[in-house]
Amino acid sequence: MIELPHAPLAELLGFELIDLGEGHASFRMDPGERHYNPLGTVHGGIAATLLDSAMGVAVHTTLNEGETYTTLELKVNYVRAITQATGPVVATGSVIHRGGRVATAEARLTDAGGRLLAHGTSTCLIM
Amino acid sequence: MIELPHAPLAELLGFELIDLGEGHASFRMDPGERHYNPLGTVHGGIAATLLDSAMGVAVHTTLNEGETYTTLELKVNYVRAITQATGPVVATGSVIHRGGRVATAEARLTDAGGRLLAHGTSTCLIM
Amino acid sequence: MIELPHAPLAELLGFELIDLGEGHASFRMDPGERHYNPLGTVHGGIAATLLDSAMGVAVHTTLNEGETYTTLELKVNYVRAITQATGPVVATGSVIHRGGRVATAEARLTDAGGRLLAHGTSTCLIM
Amino acid sequence: MIELPHAPLAELLGFELIDLGEGHASFRMDPGERHYNPLGTVHGGIAATLLDSAMGVAVHTTLNEGETYTTLELKVNYVRAITQATGPVVATGSVIHRGGRVATAEARLTDAGGRLLAHGTSTCLIM
Repeated sequence: MIELPHAPLAELLGFELIDLGEGHASFRMDPGERHYNPLGTVHGGIAATLLDSAMGVAVHTTLNEGETYTTLELKVNYVRAITQATGPVVATGSVIHRGGRVATAEARLTDAGGRLLAHGTSTCLIM
Repeated sequence: MIELPHAPLAELLGFELIDLGEGHASFRMDPGERHYNPLGTVHGGIAATLLDSAMGVAVHTTLNEGETYTTLELKVNYVRAITQATGPVVATGSVIHRGGRVATAEARLTDAGGRLLAHGTSTCLIM
Repeated sequence: MIELPHAPLAELLGFELIDLGEGHASFRMDPGERHYNPLGTVHGGIAATLLDSAMGVAVHTTLNEGETYTTLELKVNYVRAITQATGPVVATGSVIHRGGRVATAEARLTDAGGRLLAHGTSTCLIM
Repeated sequence: MIELPHAPLAELLGFELIDLGEGHASFRMDPGERHYNPLGTVHGGIAATLLDSAMGVAVHTTLNEGETYTTLELKVNYVRAITQATGPVVATGSVIHRGGRVATAEARLTDAGGRLLAHGTSTCLIM
């Protein structure tokens, strides 16, 4: 089990790690009006944050002693608008490829009924 | 000048629109510890949020009466780590292509010295 | 079964549809020196072409009477270099989300042993 | 001037390097029916190939003695359909960021009148 240190943005936005294993990780958040963009829906940056967290921690679980990683890029597809009425959402990230220098991951954001809200992929550099 | 309505996430994270014109928009934020991920740098979701905001509003400025838009996808490249020491950052978005049904945009996130921190592109659907 | 019309680029590059079903499609190609970039490996554009074909045809299988589609964007991750020695490769595309106006898909390119060579995602507009 | 070695795919598809400088490169191609997908337009893989070439060679021009690079990922936005009637197209790639281990680039594909046909970004690993 990886002990994650203090996560200030997670506290500010209200998301938390709910599952973690070799090559995968899940975060959960309750969307609220404080996450809204001016259009009255949850800001696209929130889904990006959740997917990025899930993919980053998924890659983190594959690190060996003395290795660190940094995210090089992130791509997010927005599939359905999210509002307070959506209810709790979960982002689950999984490692697709783990090479010596580079790892790639994917993640999906779903509601409690399993409906897909957003999905993404990411490229991480292992150092 | 477009009057932007209430922007809750901008208030929560502390970013604000500082420039707006036909096809472009800029947002500014002061990175702080509340934006940090567990690794002790600004969470990648923050840069994604700022770039997404800048690109979305840039596309917004091109809308005709009765048109709305939604972001289909967002891609972000992370070029340099951001910390509190980075100082204020600005995300500037510009429309690349404005078609009848689809618009694409790009954005760059820089520090006060103009150093590139992150950049991205986005695809929006015009409805 | 969908009757695919004449596919000139597939003939020029030597790839062919080998599997097709509701929401998925697979293409196969034998990498050769004619596909090489100046660095002596298969050009990244080839993997992009195979993944794009697999995702596009996967989306095509979901079209209703009178609908067409166009690809808005494509993202490809390159995981392992491909050469003539790689042997036959297969790109399999699957629809992730099929909405009324937009579909997203993902695809993986693997060798005969199932090793991942490249993967991608795509956004299509349904018209 | 960098002497580019033998480029088999460029010969097969009919594209060539027409401009090269520190941090940028341009390729030109005449779209023909041999580049078509089954829908009767130039296959999306062709634009990806040209943009990838332009960005890769742009990054190549920044390499120091003993350095090589590999493309980690590529993203392409398709803005207008390309056919034989489009006439000659040019893909121009430019380096956005050149770090010690990672470089990012962007590219645009235009027709002879400067109309944008496609654009993209890419992440390269420097080794």
